[in-house]
Amino acid sequence: MEPAGLRSLVEAMAPDGGTIVARLFRALREGVRSGHLEPGVVLPSSRRAAAALGISRNSVNAAYELLRAEGLVAVDRRRAPVVTRVERLVDPAGAAGEGPALSARGRTQCGDLRTRLYADASGRFRPGAPDEPLFPRDLWARALRRAARTALGPMRAYDDYAGAPALRRALADHLRRERGLVVAPDDVVVTASSQAALSLLAACLCDPGETVLIEEPGYLGARAAFETAALRVAPLPVDEAGADIEAATGRTGARLAYVTPSNQYPLCTRMSLPRRAALIAWARAARAVVVEDDYDGEFHWRGPEAGAMQPLAPDAVVYLGSAAKSLLPALRIGWMVAPRPLASALARAVRNAGCAANVHAQLALAELIESGAWKLHLRRVTRTYETRARLLVEAIRAAAGDRVEVALPPGGLQLSVRMESLADEAAAVAGLGAAGYAVARLSGFSAGEAPVAGLLVSFAEADGPRATAFAAALGRSLGPREGRG
Amino acid sequence: MEPAGLRSLVEAMAPDGGTIVARLFRALREGVRSGHLEPGVVLPSSRRAAAALGISRNSVNAAYELLRAEGLVAVDRRRAPVVTRVERLVDPAGAAGEGPALSARGRTQCGDLRTRLYADASGRFRPGAPDEPLFPRDLWARALRRAARTALGPMRAYDDYAGAPALRRALADHLRRERGLVVAPDDVVVTASSQAALSLLAACLCDPGETVLIEEPGYLGARAAFETAALRVAPLPVDEAGADIEAATGRTGARLAYVTPSNQYPLCTRMSLPRRAALIAWARAARAVVVEDDYDGEFHWRGPEAGAMQPLAPDAVVYLGSAAKSLLPALRIGWMVAPRPLASALARAVRNAGCAANVHAQLALAELIESGAWKLHLRRVTRTYETRARLLVEAIRAAAGDRVEVALPPGGLQLSVRMESLADEAAAVAGLGAAGYAVARLSGFSAGEAPVAGLLVSFAEADGPRATAFAAALGRSLGPREGRG
Repeated sequence: MEPAGLRSLVEAMAPDGGTIVARLFRALREGVRSGHLEPGVVLPSSRRAAAALGISRNSVNAAYELLRAEGLVAVDRRRAPVVTRVERLVDPAGAAGEGPALSARGRTQCGDLRTRLYADASGRFRPGAPDEPLFPRDLWARALRRAARTALGPMRAYDDYAGAPALRRALADHLRRERGLVVAPDDVVVTASSQAALSLLAACLCDPGETVLIEEPGYLGARAAFETAALRVAPLPVDEAGADIEAATGRTGARLAYVTPSNQYPLCTRMSLPRRAALIAWARAARAVVVEDDYDGEFHWRGPEAGAMQPLAPDAVVYLGSAAKSLLPALRIGWMVAPRPLASALARAVRNAGCAANVHAQLALAELIESGAWKLHLRRVTRTYETRARLLVEAIRAAAGDRVEVALPPGGLQLSVRMESLADEAAAVAGLGAAGYAVARLSGFSAGEAPVAGLLVSFAEADGPRATAFAAALGRSLGPREGRG
Repeated sequence: MEPAGLRSLVEAMAPDGGTIVARLFRALREGVRSGHLEPGVVLPSSRRAAAALGISRNSVNAAYELLRAEGLVAVDRRRAPVVTRVERLVDPAGAAGEGPALSARGRTQCGDLRTRLYADASGRFRPGAPDEPLFPRDLWARALRRAARTALGPMRAYDDYAGAPALRRALADHLRRERGLVVAPDDVVVTASSQAALSLLAACLCDPGETVLIEEPGYLGARAAFETAALRVAPLPVDEAGADIEAATGRTGARLAYVTPSNQYPLCTRMSLPRRAALIAWARAARAVVVEDDYDGEFHWRGPEAGAMQPLAPDAVVYLGSAAKSLLPALRIGWMVAPRPLASALARAVRNAGCAANVHAQLALAELIESGAWKLHLRRVTRTYETRARLLVEAIRAAAGDRVEVALPPGGLQLSVRMESLADEAAAVAGLGAAGYAVARLSGFSAGEAPVAGLLVSFAEADGPRATAFAAALGRSLGPREGRG
C-alpha cells in the first residue's frame, strides 16, 4: 500500500473525531473489515506513513500497535506491518449458522402472551398505561433533580438492594395509612417492576414443575412469570365475588395463588370477604403463599380505604404494588411487602437477578410521598379517572347497552365490557381495530375452555368526545341485537 | 362500647390526617387489631357516635361501612355494629408457622456468594463502585430534568422493552466508534444492569443442567446468575494471557463461556489475540455463545481503542456493558449487544422478567452520549483513575514489594495484588480489615483447588495520602519477608 492511499483511507473512513492516532487506527480497521485492505497487504513503514500524513512516527506506531493488539496486522521487528488473516474471523461466511439459538426454556422466556389479546396492539384505549398528560412532569423533574444532587453514600453502589431506605420508610408509612397494611420499612423490597417481583417470587418460592394458581380469567403478566419459572399454572375460578379457592380443583399441592382482590384483572370486580378468608385459610393449611397484586390500589373511588387483603394475614400474603399506574410504567419502580425473613432473602434475590430500581427515581418518589405531593396527585388523578370511567360507562350503555354489560369498576384505569358470545367479541375487536382502537379481548385472559367473552378497555384517555366516539364505534361493530321473537 | 370511648380511641389511634371518616375507620381498625376492641364488642349506634364526635351520622355510617367491607365488624340491619371474629385471621398465633419457606432453587436465588470475599464488606477500598465525588451530579441532574419533561409517547408504558430508541442509537454509535463493535441500534438491548443481562442470557440460552464456562478465577456475579439458572458451572482457566479454552476440560458440550477479555476480573490482565481466536473457533464449532463482559471498557488507559472481542465474531459474541463504572451502579443501566434475532427475543425476555431500566435515566444517558458530555466525562475520570492506580501500585511496591506482585491494570477501578500463599492472603485480609479496609480475597473468586492468592483492591478513592496509608497497612499486615538462607 502506498502512503498516499493511507491518507485517502483516513479521509474516507475516519474524517473526524478523536486524535490522529485514533483516526488512523479506525481508518485502517475499517479498511481491513470492509475488504479494502486484504490479508497480505503491506502497510507503509511508520517513517513513510508519518511523512505522508504530516504527523509523527510515534503516532503512526501507536496506531499500528493498536491494530496489532486487535490482531489485524502482524508486525515483525523492523519490517512494515502486514494485514493478517485473523480478520477472517469476522467474515460472516465463517460463522457456523444464524447465530445463537434459544434454549427450550428460552422459547418461553422470550414468548409474548399478549398476542392472545390483540390483533394489533398499536391503537387507542389499550389497557395498561396511564394518560401521559396527567403525569406530573414538573413535580417529577424537580424531585429528580434534587435526588441527583443528593449524596448517595452506600446507596450509590451494590448495597441497599432492598431499595433506598428513604423509599422503604415512605412506602411503609403510605401503605400502612392508605391501604391498612401491617408493614414496617424492613418488610418492603423495591424492584424494577411488579413483573420483576412476580418473577422472583415464582423462582424463590416454587420449584420447577410445582403448581401455582392464577385467577381464571387472569393477568397474563403473572402467567408469563410463572411459565418462565417452569411452573404448572392451574386455574383459580373467578366470579362476581372474586377468586374462589373452593372451586379451584388444582389447589391441592399448589404452592402459591396469584390474586387481584381489590380490582380483579381483567373483570374489574372486588373479592368478597368470605372469599378472602377462605383463600387465607387454604394458604395457611397448605403452607402456600397468597400473592396480592394491588396494581392500582391508589385509584379506588369505591371505598378508597378498603380493599387490601394483606392486613388479614401478613404472615401468608405477599403484597405487590407499583408506580406504574399512578405515575408511569417507564419509571420502573415496583414494591413488595413480604413477611420479614422472606423480605431480606428476596433482597438478595434482587441483587442476583439484577432487577433493582433506579436510585434517583426511588428518591424522587420517596420525596413526593413524604411531602404529601403524591397524595395530592393521587386525589387529582383519581377524580379524573373516575369521571372518565363514568363517562365511558354511560356512553357504552347508550350506544350498545342492549348488546353488552358494563359496570363502573372499583377504580383503576380500565373496565370490562361483557358480551354474550365470542362471536360478538370477535366482531367488536375487528370493528374497533379498524377504527384504530387496541382493546383487549377478554377471552384472551382465559386459559380454560369456557372463556369470558368481551373486552377490556382503557378509559385513561377517555375524556368526553373520545368516550362517545369509542362507544359509537363499539355500537357499530356489534350492530343491533338480533330479534328474539 | 361507650360513645366517649370512641372519641378517645380516635384521638389516640388517628390523631390527624385525612377526613373524619378515614380517621374514624383507621382508629377502629387499629383498635380491633391491637386487641383494644375484642370480638363481640358492640360499637355505638351511628346516632350516638355522631353526637359524641360532633359529626354527621352519614360520616359514622361511612366509616362503619368501610369496617364492614374489611370484615372487621358485622352490621345487621338497624342494629349497632359488632366486632367480628374474622379479625382473628390476623392473629399471628393463627399462622401456620414462621411464614413462607424458600424453594430449593430459592435458596440459590437468595444466596450471597460475596461472603467468600469479605469477612466484613463495610470498609474502604472495596472493589466495585466508582468514587462518588467523580459522578457528574449537576450534569446528570440537568439531563434528568430535561428527560422528565420530555413527552414519552409509547415509551411511557410497556413498549420499547429493548430500551429507549434514543439510547439504543447513542450506544450503538458510541460502541462502534469507541470500542470498534459491529453494531446497529437494533442489536442493542438495554436492561436494569449487566447482572440482569447475565440472568436473561443464562436462562434464554441454556437449559437447566447444561454446562457453562466461567473464568477461573472469575466474576462471582456471573456465577450467581448461572447457578440461579440451575446451570453447571465449569472452570475456564486463566493465566497471564487470559482465558484459555484449550485448558478447559469441561468445554465439550458447554453452551456458553463467560469472559472479561479486556480487563480480566479479578486478575486485571488482558486476553491475547490467539486466545480470543481460539475461544471464537471453539464457540463456532460448538455452536456455543461467548459472553464478553466489557464492564469497564470506557476506562482503559492501555490501548483505549483496543480490547473488545465482539468485532472479531459478532455472530458468536454477546457483548455486555454498563453505566455502573463510568457513572454509578445505582443508575441501574446496562446493555447487551446481541446478534439481531437474539436481540429482539431478549427484549421480550426483559419484559417477561421485568428488568427494564428507568426511562429518564436512559434518556439522560442518551443525551450525554450524543452531546459529547459523556466522552469528556470519561476522559476526565479515566485520567483520574489512571493517576490513582499508578499511585497505589507505587505505594504498594514501596511498602510491600518484597511480599507481593502488583502491576498496573489495563484500566478500570481495581487492581490485583498477588501473594505467594493463602496464609499471606489471610494475614493481609485480617490486618487490613482491622484497619478498616474491605479488600476482597482473590482466592474467593476461585472454585477450584488451586486458588490464586492475593487481594482485589479498589483504587477508585486512592488519592495520594489514602494510597500511602493503605499500602502501609498492607505492609504491616504481611510483615517482613522471612529469611531464605
